[in-house]
Amino acid sequence: MDKKSENVVWHNHSVNRELRIMKKGHKPCVLWFTGLSGSGKSTIANAVDYLLYQRGVHTYVLDGDNVRHGLNGDLGFSDTDRVENIRRIGEVAKLFVDAGLVVSTAFISPFKADRSLVRNQLDDGEFFEVFIDTPLEVCEQRDPKGLYKKARSGEIKNFTGISSAYEAPEEADVHVETDGKSVEQCAEFVVNALIDAGIVKA
Amino acid sequence: MDKKSENVVWHNHSVNRELRIMKKGHKPCVLWFTGLSGSGKSTIANAVDYLLYQRGVHTYVLDGDNVRHGLNGDLGFSDTDRVENIRRIGEVAKLFVDAGLVVSTAFISPFKADRSLVRNQLDDGEFFEVFIDTPLEVCEQRDPKGLYKKARSGEIKNFTGISSAYEAPEEADVHVETDGKSVEQCAEFVVNALIDAGIVKA
Repeated sequence: MDKKSENVVWHNHSVNRELRIMKKGHKPCVLWFTGLSGSGKSTIANAVDYLLYQRGVHTYVLDGDNVRHGLNGDLGFSDTDRVENIRRIGEVAKLFVDAGLVVSTAFISPFKADRSLVRNQLDDGEFFEVFIDTPLEVCEQRDPKGLYKKARSGEIKNFTGISSAYEAPEEADVHVETDGKSVEQCAEFVVNALIDAGIVKA
Repeated sequence: MDKKSENVVWHNHSVNRELRIMKKGHKPCVLWFTGLSGSGKSTIANAVDYLLYQRGVHTYVLDGDNVRHGLNGDLGFSDTDRVENIRRIGEVAKLFVDAGLVVSTAFISPFKADRSLVRNQLDDGEFFEVFIDTPLEVCEQRDPKGLYKKARSGEIKNFTGISSAYEAPEEADVHVETDGKSVEQCAEFVVNALIDAGIVKA
């Protein structure tokens, strides 16, 4: 195995992003869902994932279930760990984009600076900030995990929307106002935005 | 958007691993390449990637280029950081498997304990330890990045194979003896092992 000839023969034979995109039949991107706890981020992200799957798009969803106890299982909830949590999710999302997939992330990600950090890791047109805009009252009324109740009683400290800020995106790439809409309507709104942006075919 | 009915309607509509596998037309797995510096891990991993791509397999390669400066850019070379480096790569590989891809990793990963940790993160039949078995003399003679020279002079400390142990796999899932073989032959050997294991179709 001569190193020089090996390089000559194989150099152009590795699979690059362009080849992967060509095979997938759609462009890759990150759908960065952000919103309050209980806003419907994960539900809508999964609904979008399902609609994209039906269209033949290669997708993946990163959320608390598969990230928080795995890759980020060593992180707590300090300020430093919170930033590191989002940084790693952004880096992993970037790898999935490089692999040619449409990857959705569903984390509260309340701070603009953290979300900007991820946006800056990606190329133009590869990062879509999807703001799941559900009024706090609605989220608190749903309270699917009983977290708002615990936040109000003080059992949980620094809870986004109650005792810690949620910095809503001012210019989200996709602004989903969920009030009065079904999950399916919200998901279709996101998919249509991806069609308009040329990520997936109409 | 009523939470209860939302759950009823949408619960079965998220895309799970089985659906993703069905679409991809092959099983997902990790090809964990391990071997000395200069053994040909990355070259062969990319050659395997190319052969799999030609067969319509959805793949990705994790290596120093896309991981070390991104996700693991905060890690140094201490014992703790070395373990954390491999742990994170294993967790990310697991996410790619969950997404339905055949993901290759090309890192020296000299210690059995670290590799076992990753194997244990994955289900049976999803982790293939691919030992790129190239004699130390051959690796040192190639020395593509001049690292062996620096290790011999003492400029680099704890260099695998010279001043730090390489714990060769005793029962690798795929044992590639590269000596006297072309890169293409080595890559085909790996692909044939995947066909035998039922990961990809013949």
